[in-house]
Amino acid sequence: MSNAQLLIAANTIWVVVAAVLVMFMQAGFAFLEAGLTRMKNAGHIAGKNVLIFAVCSLVYWAVGFGIAFGDGNRFVGTSGFAPSVDSLLAIGKAPYSFFTTVPAAAGYLFEVVFAGVSLAIVWGAMAERAKLWVYFVFGAAFTLIYSVTSHWVWGGGWLFGLGMQDFAGSTVVHYQGALAALAGALLLGPRIGKFEGGRGNAIPGHNIPYAVLGTIILWFGWFGFNPGSTLGVVTGDHVGFFAYVALTTNLAAAAGAVSGALTAWLVLRKPDISMMLNGVLAALVAVTAASGFVAPWAAVVIGLVSGVIAVVGVLWVERIGIDDPIGAVAVHGISGVWGTIATGLFAVPALAATLKTGQGGFVYTGSLHQVWVQLLGLAAVGTFTFSASFGCLWTMKRLWGIRVEEKTETAGLDVSEHGMWGYPEFYIPVPGGYGTGAHGHLLSRAHRHPVLVEEAEPDSREAARAEATAA
Amino acid sequence: MSNAQLLIAANTIWVVVAAVLVMFMQAGFAFLEAGLTRMKNAGHIAGKNVLIFAVCSLVYWAVGFGIAFGDGNRFVGTSGFAPSVDSLLAIGKAPYSFFTTVPAAAGYLFEVVFAGVSLAIVWGAMAERAKLWVYFVFGAAFTLIYSVTSHWVWGGGWLFGLGMQDFAGSTVVHYQGALAALAGALLLGPRIGKFEGGRGNAIPGHNIPYAVLGTIILWFGWFGFNPGSTLGVVTGDHVGFFAYVALTTNLAAAAGAVSGALTAWLVLRKPDISMMLNGVLAALVAVTAASGFVAPWAAVVIGLVSGVIAVVGVLWVERIGIDDPIGAVAVHGISGVWGTIATGLFAVPALAATLKTGQGGFVYTGSLHQVWVQLLGLAAVGTFTFSASFGCLWTMKRLWGIRVEEKTETAGLDVSEHGMWGYPEFYIPVPGGYGTGAHGHLLSRAHRHPVLVEEAEPDSREAARAEATAA
Amino acid sequence: MSNAQLLIAANTIWVVVAAVLVMFMQAGFAFLEAGLTRMKNAGHIAGKNVLIFAVCSLVYWAVGFGIAFGDGNRFVGTSGFAPSVDSLLAIGKAPYSFFTTVPAAAGYLFEVVFAGVSLAIVWGAMAERAKLWVYFVFGAAFTLIYSVTSHWVWGGGWLFGLGMQDFAGSTVVHYQGALAALAGALLLGPRIGKFEGGRGNAIPGHNIPYAVLGTIILWFGWFGFNPGSTLGVVTGDHVGFFAYVALTTNLAAAAGAVSGALTAWLVLRKPDISMMLNGVLAALVAVTAASGFVAPWAAVVIGLVSGVIAVVGVLWVERIGIDDPIGAVAVHGISGVWGTIATGLFAVPALAATLKTGQGGFVYTGSLHQVWVQLLGLAAVGTFTFSASFGCLWTMKRLWGIRVEEKTETAGLDVSEHGMWGYPEFYIPVPGGYGTGAHGHLLSRAHRHPVLVEEAEPDSREAARAEATAA
Repeated sequence: MSNAQLLIAANTIWVVVAAVLVMFMQAGFAFLEAGLTRMKNAGHIAGKNVLIFAVCSLVYWAVGFGIAFGDGNRFVGTSGFAPSVDSLLAIGKAPYSFFTTVPAAAGYLFEVVFAGVSLAIVWGAMAERAKLWVYFVFGAAFTLIYSVTSHWVWGGGWLFGLGMQDFAGSTVVHYQGALAALAGALLLGPRIGKFEGGRGNAIPGHNIPYAVLGTIILWFGWFGFNPGSTLGVVTGDHVGFFAYVALTTNLAAAAGAVSGALTAWLVLRKPDISMMLNGVLAALVAVTAASGFVAPWAAVVIGLVSGVIAVVGVLWVERIGIDDPIGAVAVHGISGVWGTIATGLFAVPALAATLKTGQGGFVYTGSLHQVWVQLLGLAAVGTFTFSASFGCLWTMKRLWGIRVEEKTETAGLDVSEHGMWGYPEFYIPVPGGYGTGAHGHLLSRAHRHPVLVEEAEPDSREAARAEATAA
Repeated sequence: MSNAQLLIAANTIWVVVAAVLVMFMQAGFAFLEAGLTRMKNAGHIAGKNVLIFAVCSLVYWAVGFGIAFGDGNRFVGTSGFAPSVDSLLAIGKAPYSFFTTVPAAAGYLFEVVFAGVSLAIVWGAMAERAKLWVYFVFGAAFTLIYSVTSHWVWGGGWLFGLGMQDFAGSTVVHYQGALAALAGALLLGPRIGKFEGGRGNAIPGHNIPYAVLGTIILWFGWFGFNPGSTLGVVTGDHVGFFAYVALTTNLAAAAGAVSGALTAWLVLRKPDISMMLNGVLAALVAVTAASGFVAPWAAVVIGLVSGVIAVVGVLWVERIGIDDPIGAVAVHGISGVWGTIATGLFAVPALAATLKTGQGGFVYTGSLHQVWVQLLGLAAVGTFTFSASFGCLWTMKRLWGIRVEEKTETAGLDVSEHGMWGYPEFYIPVPGGYGTGAHGHLLSRAHRHPVLVEEAEPDSREAARAEATAA
Repeated sequence: MSNAQLLIAANTIWVVVAAVLVMFMQAGFAFLEAGLTRMKNAGHIAGKNVLIFAVCSLVYWAVGFGIAFGDGNRFVGTSGFAPSVDSLLAIGKAPYSFFTTVPAAAGYLFEVVFAGVSLAIVWGAMAERAKLWVYFVFGAAFTLIYSVTSHWVWGGGWLFGLGMQDFAGSTVVHYQGALAALAGALLLGPRIGKFEGGRGNAIPGHNIPYAVLGTIILWFGWFGFNPGSTLGVVTGDHVGFFAYVALTTNLAAAAGAVSGALTAWLVLRKPDISMMLNGVLAALVAVTAASGFVAPWAAVVIGLVSGVIAVVGVLWVERIGIDDPIGAVAVHGISGVWGTIATGLFAVPALAATLKTGQGGFVYTGSLHQVWVQLLGLAAVGTFTFSASFGCLWTMKRLWGIRVEEKTETAGLDVSEHGMWGYPEFYIPVPGGYGTGAHGHLLSRAHRHPVLVEEAEPDSREAARAEATAA
């Protein structure tokens, strides 16, 4: 074993471990989103995260990875589609010359889980009312949209050439996901009852411990997201630089939690827990671009501002009449913009040199050059992604409709879209279950949802349940 | 530090990290199983995963590891029982000559978590009706059965000598666990009410978000399971080959999710979420044997077929009168068989050469040789494991009985086997709890389970509760 | 790349991965604690883990890390506060000469998550009745207390100089957290109803599956906690020694589970699941000091004894009139003492030499020297931490009060401290939620908590809810 091989081995361990941590963020989104929505949709919302990650994994393997990181031009990769065994085992060779530190297979793994995170963000604002087929079709479409812009910023494209600093994707992953989420929320319209009476009615999530678990899983996964973006264990002259990236990530998240809690205390008169969780996530989103570029104090500042954005932003999005059940537009969109700009403000010149990307930020150099580059990137990605997403969803809406019927939205997506219940023992009699059989019906017939009983399509499982009830 | 030592250090990091990911699969099984069963058994079902992993860890340390990977003959390891400090710190030395890439301690860690997964599968089909002592005794017995066959296939035994390809254990871990599960389900008989009226009544799981979390945790853990089975960071000439294994694993799982959802949509008229989750798991089971041997396209094919197996297989097992609450027989058994055979069909000759195990599959070589080896392995392991498990459980049934009484099954295993409730505030008044005290009884006495109130053995905690109620 | 650089790269991978696993233990504590307490406090209890880890991260960065591991004297570190980029990227240099195997940033990451675990333990005994501001203030104070004693034992301080053996912190992390927990429990007094009628009334936790998930996450995270404490991949002459530490950790936990379950079976007449979980945790706590020093058989013995301690200790703490909802005093305190002493009994002389800390234990050397050192460490840390914690909390109690009012404790901390509900659909009507709107009110007005309805401060969210109800 040569030292060069040992280095590749070490790089691959780190990148694969980081990828696996990021993959686990799907559990974080599943529980964050299920926790912040209603019981009647809980199975659907948790389950669709599995489905869309699956769609994304297949599409990214077939096409997306080639578009994003295959050899090509400044706007799009033009090779490396549905790659072979040999090209995946190679290191730094065509069609994936980009990956010089790890085998291309590790590159695929690390990048596909990023695409999966961006896609997960999309559905937050579309929760509780989209038709199931939309997840399949727009999931595939967004994976391709994402692949194009990630080529621009990371895969050797034109924004990379201009020196845009987006270490792990405040723009590429989060802002972009939030733009598609916004397009979806606008085209779907608000949930039934959300703006009844002319103002935003709170529709509280059904399980705050789920949301907490989701947030901690996301924080945990972010230690793969940001530090893994070094794509190896040596960065410039620094061995183990990824540990530094983990440190700035952790400081920002911590500052976001404290700031979110205190801002909620001031604004809402109580330190609402879901607002504190939003503060954590908004800070993680913002420090994503900055984590390799900034000093610890700047990470704290980025987090503190993000905590304010999380609370005020979520309330503002509701105020302007957009129904975003999870707060994706504020937490991933507004805070993604903040993080991208903040990097241009706070980037340490020596770290920009280490990472060979752009230059030092305004507070060190007095120059706004880097800020302008960041703003250009935001404008370009924003225009492309919002247009493409809106166009795609608008076409789908015109052709077949993207929103479920009122009746099924009222009954809940679990039963209407999947023919099952997330928590059946709270809705229907289950043989030998809670409140049935010899033990009396805790949930009497009168208490059950009439829509469920009358409207749900009878299928084999329904029939079985009906029988069980009769027994 | 020599390069050889650095390589061992890197290997050990990877193998330990992979082992830890696999260990976490116990949380996945706990939540998958608890989610797919009823509220009244939820504490028991989640908790017994901790208990059986504990039993397995101790038995595997004392005996199993020596049987499986201790130096010995072609049928069984005959050394390395209850190992000493020195033998665990050694690398590639007796009694664990097998482990040449990592210290034997890392070998123990990686292998014991595999035994734990196989054992976790066993209980899926036996859920909601087995006596608690069975977990202790059959847990220990199955750990030994598993150790014998893992010696055959992996520990230098006779099936290894014949070139059987089972990269991470479709046969050794999953099919084998499912065979014991089948033996248990046959000897226990169906749950009360399952086949009342002559057909399979659905007994829906109480918490689909739990099942989703369990599935994502399992998918996450599988990135240790399959890629970790390289036992190091260099495989043949390929540095970082484990990243490739992770890629095929992910593609198969994704294909299984999509295929499972679509098959359920066709067969059940609705894309049932638990069926989609079964599709993911069946695909992961099938690609377990294949993950190091096959091309990406083959991983997708394996996953697509597994998604169909998951849905059709689960329905078929129910049709023939077997009550398998979690679907272990179909998902781990039938899909384990499929994955083992598929490896014989699709193994890339160059990868078989890299892994020094067997030869290329039918689609490349036109020869069915490898398929026959795979079938021989399935037959041998199947005969041994099913006979031994059935014999063991049959004896236990005759001597003391393995199934709880009807009364306790009806009341639920939480209260009958553990003297507590999984969700007490839905069953009993808790001091200061939901629906008690000054705030009125949401759950009035009439709503509570009479069996629980009348029959549960009074113990110190019961008395305390009774007092609290009276207060 | 030189071999020395490759070694640092490998060390950093391992230490960062271990740190990330330990960070995830916050999810374990959140779910263990939420599961073992009541529904009305579930959001608060899960959420405050995020908050206190955030407070700890910031305080530890600003001050704590310098106190604990900055260069200084035998009692306290006096440098390295709010560190700069350069000092965090350096290896083995002032102000962090202590970290010679990894960059100081990795050191911060690994040590801050330990401080976070110790702090998480504190709140277990204070659950369900402390005011929210206490988490901010005492969270910061305890982080500093912890930093001082960790300097004594690990950061080159006087107990380190005496050869105290506390591999990963049975004393520093667990016993110390339990002492502050005890101070808090004493100053807060028991929860309403706990000792009504003159004896300990059981207040069962609301969700045992949560507690199981929490325990498995903790077990999983402990594979970072103990093995990561090698701070690198080579220990003395042993490459991959951390795998051995993982092995002893796993064996002890397994023995604790079995012992806890059997002890509960004997003492309580039923194998209570939460007692089995306590057995796992008590064993992990005890083996924390011992994991690098003892043989596998000793790890099993340590775990078996801990399982007994968990059950008997929890009952004893209740018997003497202390209300410790999670069992922190017994599980982390008594078992932490046991583990620290057990290390002095069972340390293998060769391993003590490998780790260059203290000497062999009593069973090998016949000398009680090491036991006396361990006891001295316990006495010193115990005196300092209990005094400082009690003094701090006592002052806070006198100045502003640390316990919520009776009315708010009865209503639950979710609504009283955060203005929201952990599980709103079980408490209030949610627009379109479970049991509302056209589908009838499952939870009729009469069933809702009058305190909640009458007393909760009206804010914008409240008003929205009221409106939704009226609609």
